[in-house]
Amino acid sequence: MAKIHELDTPVVLIDIDRVEVNLKRAQDYADANGVKLRPHIKTHKLPQFAKRQMELGAIGITCQKIGEAEVMVDAGLRDILLPYNFLGEPKLKRLLALAKRAALKVTADSITTIDGYSRTFSESGITLPVLVECDTGGARAGVQTPEEALALARYINASDGLRFAGLMTYPAKGATAQANAWLARATVLLREAGLAPEIVSTGGTPDLWHSGENGAATEYRPGTYIYLDRFQVHEGVGGFEDCALSVLATVVSRPTNTRAILDAGSKTLTSDTLGLQGFGRIVEYPDAVIASLSEEHGTVDLTRSTAKPRVGDMVRIIPNHACPVSNLFDEVTLVRGDDVVGTVPVAARGKVA
Amino acid sequence: MAKIHELDTPVVLIDIDRVEVNLKRAQDYADANGVKLRPHIKTHKLPQFAKRQMELGAIGITCQKIGEAEVMVDAGLRDILLPYNFLGEPKLKRLLALAKRAALKVTADSITTIDGYSRTFSESGITLPVLVECDTGGARAGVQTPEEALALARYINASDGLRFAGLMTYPAKGATAQANAWLARATVLLREAGLAPEIVSTGGTPDLWHSGENGAATEYRPGTYIYLDRFQVHEGVGGFEDCALSVLATVVSRPTNTRAILDAGSKTLTSDTLGLQGFGRIVEYPDAVIASLSEEHGTVDLTRSTAKPRVGDMVRIIPNHACPVSNLFDEVTLVRGDDVVGTVPVAARGKVA
Repeated sequence: MAKIHELDTPVVLIDIDRVEVNLKRAQDYADANGVKLRPHIKTHKLPQFAKRQMELGAIGITCQKIGEAEVMVDAGLRDILLPYNFLGEPKLKRLLALAKRAALKVTADSITTIDGYSRTFSESGITLPVLVECDTGGARAGVQTPEEALALARYINASDGLRFAGLMTYPAKGATAQANAWLARATVLLREAGLAPEIVSTGGTPDLWHSGENGAATEYRPGTYIYLDRFQVHEGVGGFEDCALSVLATVVSRPTNTRAILDAGSKTLTSDTLGLQGFGRIVEYPDAVIASLSEEHGTVDLTRSTAKPRVGDMVRIIPNHACPVSNLFDEVTLVRGDDVVGTVPVAARGKVA
Repeated sequence: MAKIHELDTPVVLIDIDRVEVNLKRAQDYADANGVKLRPHIKTHKLPQFAKRQMELGAIGITCQKIGEAEVMVDAGLRDILLPYNFLGEPKLKRLLALAKRAALKVTADSITTIDGYSRTFSESGITLPVLVECDTGGARAGVQTPEEALALARYINASDGLRFAGLMTYPAKGATAQANAWLARATVLLREAGLAPEIVSTGGTPDLWHSGENGAATEYRPGTYIYLDRFQVHEGVGGFEDCALSVLATVVSRPTNTRAILDAGSKTLTSDTLGLQGFGRIVEYPDAVIASLSEEHGTVDLTRSTAKPRVGDMVRIIPNHACPVSNLFDEVTLVRGDDVVGTVPVAARGKVA
């Protein structure tokens, strides 16, 4: 069996034992707290992990793009929430084709989006479940008030080929209580109008361990919990020892006593800081700072690190944000400790549309 | 012939007429100023454009990774500079295999790197040309002084299977004069030691139009000049009308009067700001600001834009940095005006190692 130090770098390592622990821990929490999990596959983009999430008790999966859902349906997944406004004839055609093969649910926050769904599904024989996207403070997409949510719910139910299926939000960081209050208000309004939402979907790994307190929500969509990353550790979701995804890189240059250059730049680690200082944590040199990235070089400041790596040394990096790293690699290497277990193509990578 | 507004979004559009103009303009400048161009393919990652660069007069190409060079050699390119320290047995084996098929040149800034090259090539029958990487102010990899460059040049020539072939630097932004002075000093030292450098390679699109003034340099490695991007326009290399790469995106939400959401987030535009405000320029709404990105959403601030897009409208975005956008897409769409000319796989995309 190959060892990780025999690999060509940079390479993404997935510790499969940690994956299993992370998935089980979350599902156990969900089961104990009456939370239904619908994991977001954007973090791993791997059908085998989506299937494992289902085996452990997830009620379905979440994909952000139709291209991702196509890969998952091809692999046998059959219950998929797509929390996105889909527009344009090419995409709506793909949505209809996929809806013939799996139970899809989509979202909308405008009449234009709903009209597109209705035009596409009205004569298909399929009734598409549509959730209303709600901006509960995240300042991204979504209706601005519960009253607008009610108006769109009515509009959906009045549209051929569609059925109002509930509410969806991505809560602002640290504003879960605010999001829950918003959703609770909207739920009351809808119930009074005879449109009780079947699904109220919220999510985000940072608040996973508080999802049992989400009164109004019926489903939760965590993504990063499978791997964790430096940002989630910063948010207190777990420790570095829980991180299942790391990047194995090589020190390719030591130009000065306080500078090391890694063969992992923005093409490997991405430029996402998520507000953190530095671009990842070097496991073997926790006091070193990945200070800047160009596409193929990571520049490490060793000023505060008494231990200094040598040219040719390999290091493991916990990236700031695991999800976009998965999206940069055609394949990931599964490991158990220092043993290489196998290589898996990242089947849903690069599905931008 | 299909029109671009019929495409599924997000999609990368390459205006082939602008590509041709940009390539010719640079080659004409180079020819008129006695500069040898060795374009960096990291921007386009497409064999067909590398071949076009050669047809127009480039003396060879530059690739940053062996995986990129493998793709280019497969496509028929035969003279490749790889300005990188390659380390580790898997990578050195691939380097040797590729050197049997094409004229490769590599770089080194340490004895460890040189020893690896020598161990790999000493009994191969091939003499590998090695340039010394010089840190002329960019604070990335590279030897720190001309004296160190001389010492490594001697070490290379004393190593079996290797030949000292010159100097390579990536100059700091706005410090071309400083880089040239450094290279000139090193060249004098080397000449006095009987080791006159055959190649002195520098580069970077921002200083392309001054490359004729690089006294010590013999070769220039521009990359982004083929497409340009918002950063290069900011640097004065060209205007927005010269930008050949754009991202076609759809407005998927208009949650408020001053906010629009695009279906292009960091998975499409990357998180690279290159120091600029915002994540790209919207051609149709130049006063709108792409204020933040999540993976699949671009949040646009319309406060200063009197014109406001509607849900379903398509817009074209000039990204801050074209190179990493190329790396995110499996294929790009070639266009001429509003006509779709064809689709090309980004053959050297995702070649991280």
